[in-house]
Amino acid sequence: MGGDMEFFERVGNRPGKPVMLDALKWDRDGLVTVVAQDATNKEVLGVAHADRVAIEKSLETGLMHYYSRSRKKLWLKGEQSGHFQKLVELRVDCDGDALLAKVRQIKANCHLGFRSCFAYRVAKARTGAWRVREVGRKVFDPKKVYGK
Amino acid sequence: MGGDMEFFERVGNRPGKPVMLDALKWDRDGLVTVVAQDATNKEVLGVAHADRVAIEKSLETGLMHYYSRSRKKLWLKGEQSGHFQKLVELRVDCDGDALLAKVRQIKANCHLGFRSCFAYRVAKARTGAWRVREVGRKVFDPKKVYGK
Repeated sequence: MGGDMEFFERVGNRPGKPVMLDALKWDRDGLVTVVAQDATNKEVLGVAHADRVAIEKSLETGLMHYYSRSRKKLWLKGEQSGHFQKLVELRVDCDGDALLAKVRQIKANCHLGFRSCFAYRVAKARTGAWRVREVGRKVFDPKKVYGK
Repeated sequence: MGGDMEFFERVGNRPGKPVMLDALKWDRDGLVTVVAQDATNKEVLGVAHADRVAIEKSLETGLMHYYSRSRKKLWLKGEQSGHFQKLVELRVDCDGDALLAKVRQIKANCHLGFRSCFAYRVAKARTGAWRVREVGRKVFDPKKVYGK
């Protein structure tokens, strides 16, 4: 939310990938937030970030690319694990600083072996204390996939 | 993804909201990313940010609070529009820098009147050019709700 012009006004009726990319609201690191959602069962798989190149590559190849903030480089999701994300539909939000990628996820999104990175639930225990519990569905052994 | 300890290891088996909050990976502005998802139909409603206070308030009251980056202050979602988000379940991701809030959304999430902020689809037209199309479901008139 903000007083400035919204994403869709910035795009207008002009076609083209550059128009869309120019209309996004990049943060000070040149990134937008990307939410990956399973296109089939609608589970939210995780949150990552993309720069301009990552979005271009995702649209061109149909495979999700991100910008890895820890490794500071372009990252083809699944390049190491084989757990690619096939882009089914790309959505942009009202102010243009977040994308929703509806994907077909090979195996799992999370590097810890969970189908979704959102593997931990915050809930009140019977004692009244808040607790974090692992509730994620583990679908692979990271030691076998990443060898660590 | 990063080499450092994961969220769940930082929490360990210790109960309490402060433990959970201390284990989150706050960005340089003291925020984490929050994805709001309709708990019923699983539609992704939007992305916002929360500071420590916003998360505490959300857990205490059961109503989603965020940190408004544009207004630089705590923001009870729906405080102006009446479109509150009732927190059904809170999830944390593997590295602890993103939350997934499964919510019961009153009316709509988007200030433009759409049920979800992700109202725009990026898709290839028959001409081969990429185009942005409004596909969101409009459920209220922002002029009537916000008077602007």
